Amino acid sequence: MPDFSATKAQFTLPKGVIYLDGNSLGPLPKAAGANMARVLQEEWGQMLITGWNKAGWMDQPTRTGDRIARLIGAQPGHVVMGDTLSIKVYQALASALALNPDRRVILSDSGNFPSDLYMAQGLIATLGQGHELRVVAPEEVADNITPEVAATLLTEVDYRTGRMHDMRALTRRAHDMGVITVWDLAHTAGATQVDLAGCDADFAVGCTYKYLNGGPGAPAFIYVNPRHAEAALPALSGWLGHEAPFAFDLAYRPGAGIERMRVGTPPVLALAALEAALDIWDMTDMAQVRAQSLALTDRFIAGIEATCPMLELATPRAHAERGSQVSFRFAEGYAAMQALIARGVIGDFRAPDIMRFGFTPLFIDAADVDAAVAIITDVMQNALWDRPEYKTRAKVT
Amino acid sequence: MPDFSATKAQFTLPKGVIYLDGNSLGPLPKAAGANMARVLQEEWGQMLITGWNKAGWMDQPTRTGDRIARLIGAQPGHVVMGDTLSIKVYQALASALALNPDRRVILSDSGNFPSDLYMAQGLIATLGQGHELRVVAPEEVADNITPEVAATLLTEVDYRTGRMHDMRALTRRAHDMGVITVWDLAHTAGATQVDLAGCDADFAVGCTYKYLNGGPGAPAFIYVNPRHAEAALPALSGWLGHEAPFAFDLAYRPGAGIERMRVGTPPVLALAALEAALDIWDMTDMAQVRAQSLALTDRFIAGIEATCPMLELATPRAHAERGSQVSFRFAEGYAAMQALIARGVIGDFRAPDIMRFGFTPLFIDAADVDAAVAIITDVMQNALWDRPEYKTRAKVT
Repeated sequence: MPDFSATKAQFTLPKGVIYLDGNSLGPLPKAAGANMARVLQEEWGQMLITGWNKAGWMDQPTRTGDRIARLIGAQPGHVVMGDTLSIKVYQALASALALNPDRRVILSDSGNFPSDLYMAQGLIATLGQGHELRVVAPEEVADNITPEVAATLLTEVDYRTGRMHDMRALTRRAHDMGVITVWDLAHTAGATQVDLAGCDADFAVGCTYKYLNGGPGAPAFIYVNPRHAEAALPALSGWLGHEAPFAFDLAYRPGAGIERMRVGTPPVLALAALEAALDIWDMTDMAQVRAQSLALTDRFIAGIEATCPMLELATPRAHAERGSQVSFRFAEGYAAMQALIARGVIGDFRAPDIMRFGFTPLFIDAADVDAAVAIITDVMQNALWDRPEYKTRAKVT
Repeated sequence: MPDFSATKAQFTLPKGVIYLDGNSLGPLPKAAGANMARVLQEEWGQMLITGWNKAGWMDQPTRTGDRIARLIGAQPGHVVMGDTLSIKVYQALASALALNPDRRVILSDSGNFPSDLYMAQGLIATLGQGHELRVVAPEEVADNITPEVAATLLTEVDYRTGRMHDMRALTRRAHDMGVITVWDLAHTAGATQVDLAGCDADFAVGCTYKYLNGGPGAPAFIYVNPRHAEAALPALSGWLGHEAPFAFDLAYRPGAGIERMRVGTPPVLALAALEAALDIWDMTDMAQVRAQSLALTDRFIAGIEATCPMLELATPRAHAERGSQVSFRFAEGYAAMQALIARGVIGDFRAPDIMRFGFTPLFIDAADVDAAVAIITDVMQNALWDRPEYKTRAKVT
């Protein structure tokens, strides 16, 4: 196994905790505090308004985007940061539909994160052109990519099961049918080895607070295929996506390429935290991260299946179909997860019966997996999760 | 004059600087560093995913919104934080148009901040229903509020001149004509004594990085009149605006009241900086802030007009028509502002000829005004701004 002890040493990890929820919120990079303090005191505090130029705040969304581009198989200049993932879904989908004006179907699947579906529903209502959001089972997506589909809106890795779509095959199928693809990389970026450019994906969006460790509510990113960069028109046409923001013209003119996907004033402080996380990512190679992730999830699956027959694996065994999390189905999963959290193994629960465990090589190693397996085994075999106190706790979100 | 020395002591203000650009980016609250460090280390670092409940991150957008509500004449429960001002403009305007489905005119004015107009243009293109953005001169707004207008989209205080609309009269006129009002409070919140509830304003939006001192790229806010709270449908229908976000339903159902204006995951770190600023605002009374602001701008106007006849006042003299900034027209204004900045008087410049100076009583006092007037007088009378080195500097944004 490659050695990730150097990256693990860069994170604050509470004592007595095995944190298997980096797929929901990544841990704090140790350097984030110092970087934030520097931005607060030396930049905001001393430069004040001149920080926009002197400290490079204005270019931060593209500069940071370029660093994420490397992690998702994109070239520099095609990714920009800002807003939230939901906003970026709206922006990407609106652009995609505008590129396919004669079609009315948005294809998604029931494993998509609900906010993506909600944003699509809001866009459809706003457009008022009779678009249909067609939601099929994940395994039926390929067959439903037909010439009536304008755009697909798919999350590559299922937030509950960790099942991964075949981005390359689905994108090829989509293009064969004249369909524009919008990929949500929420559980992909920093988790798997994705190749946006090689797959010829049209649009991609993602958040940075999960595997990328950017902090609670960290900004989102959007990727636009350079083929579309000068044609895509953002529905959310804000001043920082204007060709000349400081000309203060009254009419909107889209900026060059990815710049037009910027909307409002950049979230400088949030990006400062993310930059500390990206310093750690700069130490990594995504092929090694992916190899290690698969080794960890294999090890976890084997360990749990050897001792916990009551847990039913919900995550695909095939590497090509697996993200970087492992989920098990268990009818008393909510209470069981509460019992695990009380023992220091932090995963989470998704209704009705999914126990989720995320594995990110940057700070989880084989010893953590073995320790987690031992605790889970003990909890499950001794049915501690069945005690009333675990059933009455506040729900962990 | 009331004494604001207690609030002034709460800010980091660089030595040798008189900061008259708080209307663009407010200064750093001294407590922001400690509050941010606490949220990073004790909350994100130690609580990890459980911070959403334990640290109250999930309620932060409404909790923070309630504190801003007091400053803008709204009741608690009607303001929520998130996204950027541009996004909130889109959300408010989309909701406003949906409340007036049979009308097709959006009325704005040429003194509006361009991003508001751009977002309206993007929304119009997305709606594809033939809406017209009608942009008139600020003084012609009242006469153009007619029964064909669906919504007004007005920034109360002009970002260049500091001219303030009569929100009460325009809102009354709008309602007489069946028009929904959307007010942008970018240069109002923390600057003037606004009374959203008393004026019966329909929607209002604003940013928090100007007079409210929330930091570069701080989140925006949106206010919805309780009359509309259960009828307004956000075009940007994200999961945190859903009635039950953690039910993970596939269909969107709007949350109760202002909650539906939430979109994606809250910007926890950015809100942590804003909270430090709001602790200072909790020390204030907006009537006193407004009185002091007018005293400061009166004093500045009188001082400059006594010594700098080459500067032409662009800001209204009447208190009822003035925000919290003073602008002068001067053909060589760009170079002159560079010269002032080199002398430590930080204002800014807006093409073609506007020199802007913002006055916020929380950290600017009469002594600062007098010192600024002395330096401006010296610079203007000695024409230092005419030297070539000032003409070639990078533009201050």
